[in-house]
Amino acid sequence: MAVPKKKILVVVMDGLGDRACPDLRGLTPLQYIRHPNLDWFLTHGQGGICDPVGPGVRPGSDTAHLSILGYNPHEVYTGRGPFEALGIGMDIQPGDVALRCNFATVDDSLEVLDRRAGRIREPETSELVECLDGIEIDGVECLVKESTEHRAVLLLRGEDLCPDITDADPGGDTHLMMCEPLTEEAEFTAGVVNGFLEECYERLKNHPTNRKRVAAGLPPANILVPRGAGSFPNIDPFPEKFGVSAACVAGVGMIKGICKACGLDVYPLPDNCDGTMDSDFIIKAQCAMEALEEYDFVLMNCKAPDIAGHDGDAKAKSEVIKRLDTMAGYIKDNMPEDLVVALTCDHCTPCILGDHSGDPVPIAIFTRNIVRDEASEFSESGCARGGLGRIRGRDIVPICMDLANRTEKYGS
Amino acid sequence: MAVPKKKILVVVMDGLGDRACPDLRGLTPLQYIRHPNLDWFLTHGQGGICDPVGPGVRPGSDTAHLSILGYNPHEVYTGRGPFEALGIGMDIQPGDVALRCNFATVDDSLEVLDRRAGRIREPETSELVECLDGIEIDGVECLVKESTEHRAVLLLRGEDLCPDITDADPGGDTHLMMCEPLTEEAEFTAGVVNGFLEECYERLKNHPTNRKRVAAGLPPANILVPRGAGSFPNIDPFPEKFGVSAACVAGVGMIKGICKACGLDVYPLPDNCDGTMDSDFIIKAQCAMEALEEYDFVLMNCKAPDIAGHDGDAKAKSEVIKRLDTMAGYIKDNMPEDLVVALTCDHCTPCILGDHSGDPVPIAIFTRNIVRDEASEFSESGCARGGLGRIRGRDIVPICMDLANRTEKYGS
Repeated sequence: MAVPKKKILVVVMDGLGDRACPDLRGLTPLQYIRHPNLDWFLTHGQGGICDPVGPGVRPGSDTAHLSILGYNPHEVYTGRGPFEALGIGMDIQPGDVALRCNFATVDDSLEVLDRRAGRIREPETSELVECLDGIEIDGVECLVKESTEHRAVLLLRGEDLCPDITDADPGGDTHLMMCEPLTEEAEFTAGVVNGFLEECYERLKNHPTNRKRVAAGLPPANILVPRGAGSFPNIDPFPEKFGVSAACVAGVGMIKGICKACGLDVYPLPDNCDGTMDSDFIIKAQCAMEALEEYDFVLMNCKAPDIAGHDGDAKAKSEVIKRLDTMAGYIKDNMPEDLVVALTCDHCTPCILGDHSGDPVPIAIFTRNIVRDEASEFSESGCARGGLGRIRGRDIVPICMDLANRTEKYGS
Repeated sequence: MAVPKKKILVVVMDGLGDRACPDLRGLTPLQYIRHPNLDWFLTHGQGGICDPVGPGVRPGSDTAHLSILGYNPHEVYTGRGPFEALGIGMDIQPGDVALRCNFATVDDSLEVLDRRAGRIREPETSELVECLDGIEIDGVECLVKESTEHRAVLLLRGEDLCPDITDADPGGDTHLMMCEPLTEEAEFTAGVVNGFLEECYERLKNHPTNRKRVAAGLPPANILVPRGAGSFPNIDPFPEKFGVSAACVAGVGMIKGICKACGLDVYPLPDNCDGTMDSDFIIKAQCAMEALEEYDFVLMNCKAPDIAGHDGDAKAKSEVIKRLDTMAGYIKDNMPEDLVVALTCDHCTPCILGDHSGDPVPIAIFTRNIVRDEASEFSESGCARGGLGRIRGRDIVPICMDLANRTEKYGS
């Protein structure tokens, strides 16, 4: 009997899970707001809870997405720098070391006056980056590109680089720290980064853009402060690992970067799907449906609930859920007949924390002919009653692949 | 947003879980007896079931407590001897080998007449130990200290010791067996233990204490039978591993020893908190509340349910549950406002077995703002309906740490 292979859509509603919110009478946003379309996928499918990385582990969006794509982040996560670089479209190669940077304001003695240089942004950051990109220190090429707001990436390309160095980010401290090597092998790399820091200050301190800022009473962005050094991630490409063509539908640079590093294509989106609070979920869902015509596997990320969670705004998060529910309705009405759909989040972002937590996240998996359970409310508690039980992030893709009739028999 | 860190209390009701008891109309003691205060923590929190070590693995109290403290016992458990030694306050050091011993009665041909020497206890055991402590065999110092009832610990200190030797305990057999080396490296150590056995018999057979016992018609305690050899455990200290100050509130030597080996402080308790059937749980709970003023993390152990289980006495175990429930009520009424509380057991001790089983144990985790589930009866079956799902012993501390807002983000 030839069983047709199904396509797969994984919808990651970033940071959607929560804890009891005092502003919502002790309910979570998912418990507080009606969401009949999200519930439809659960009622017609199976619910469960999922530890994105592991029980009690508080994941970043990066490590959580690696898990959701079926990888063990403890094996493949090599620091945020390389993922950020991939996310903004830098061409990171084996042997490179990438670091995330902030534009900052320092005085002559390298005291940090403003860690974000007055939240400088484009086009000024692009103007400043232009004079930094391509600096050579000890034979190492320093590639620089602006990222969102006051952020940028520094990519080192050359021989004998090693990412085991400390952050130059002063954190709570006020004096800019030089990078220290954590291993003997990384001494050369620390020296290169510190050399870049000095050269960077020399080139930025009197830069015309900064002169204009000072004249306007704004802090000059006269240094780039690097942190999160990492090397090129060594990841088995997702299409080879699972035998499918795959794309991501995401607006946020970092998510795109992670997906690209895992070998997924980044599906082009219109400007109004940009991973902000105002991102248009219906357009994004339309793009996901289009992508499913071309690809076997599509991961879709909606960033807005995470933003509301970081803002600690339970009411705003509830409003986002209404829009996500409308999106779920669109998917329900427009999806191909034989699709496997997983609705979940990469981590909880409880409003009372304003940050990620290690709580398990709700998950619903739907496809035709799946064994239904009694779970009916897509929420942290409602999904916990479902037939999936408690799974891990990296179980999601194997479970979907099997429901899609795409797995090889192990044994006979 | 600065989120306050909470303190954590883990209450281990030793051996509390059970199987269907014929004496209780086929119910478990937890199903048979009302316990509204234990239920309160579940109703206001989350329930689940927990495999202390792994599904179907029948743990000892020692391996289960290591798991509950977040360790993998397969990595850190080095035999019961060292944990028993730590529990009775012996100063075990790297390189030492420790063995648990019974005082026993043998005849001239080393036939064992009574494996527990008529359940001899203090002060007689202390009198006998005095003539054994400090014996030197082949340059190895033999340190001996009495433990509870007919038990003692033999600690070997010297060069080239190796714990890979068989037990001298005859078990079902009646003839005292000499220790055999399990590896070539352990040949010397087996020789030392066997040399100690001979010297021990020589010194004890005509000891005044034993002459008095024989005159009174009691079996002489004329040998120490060692088993459970192990070396100094190599464990990352709990306070460093989890970034908290930590103490245990326990009456039983072995539990204190395990906690001490894991770097927890042993909180001093009055004599009526001695880990027996009559141990005063309210006083113990008071001490736990005091300890929480000083420490971030407190593990509390109540031994009585395990004792009732080993006695196969389901009615007695039910009575113990009434007292545990009163204790839970005391904790509920006296705990600090922002506390994470986990109620669980280290293993089931089903009355029909009179010994530990590998069944999963019930667990409830409570804290303010936790997402509640619908579980409401703290029992083996009632907790299985809860939102925690099925977890492992070593997930408990990470989950509590995250609920206490004490975890570092992994990634960003």
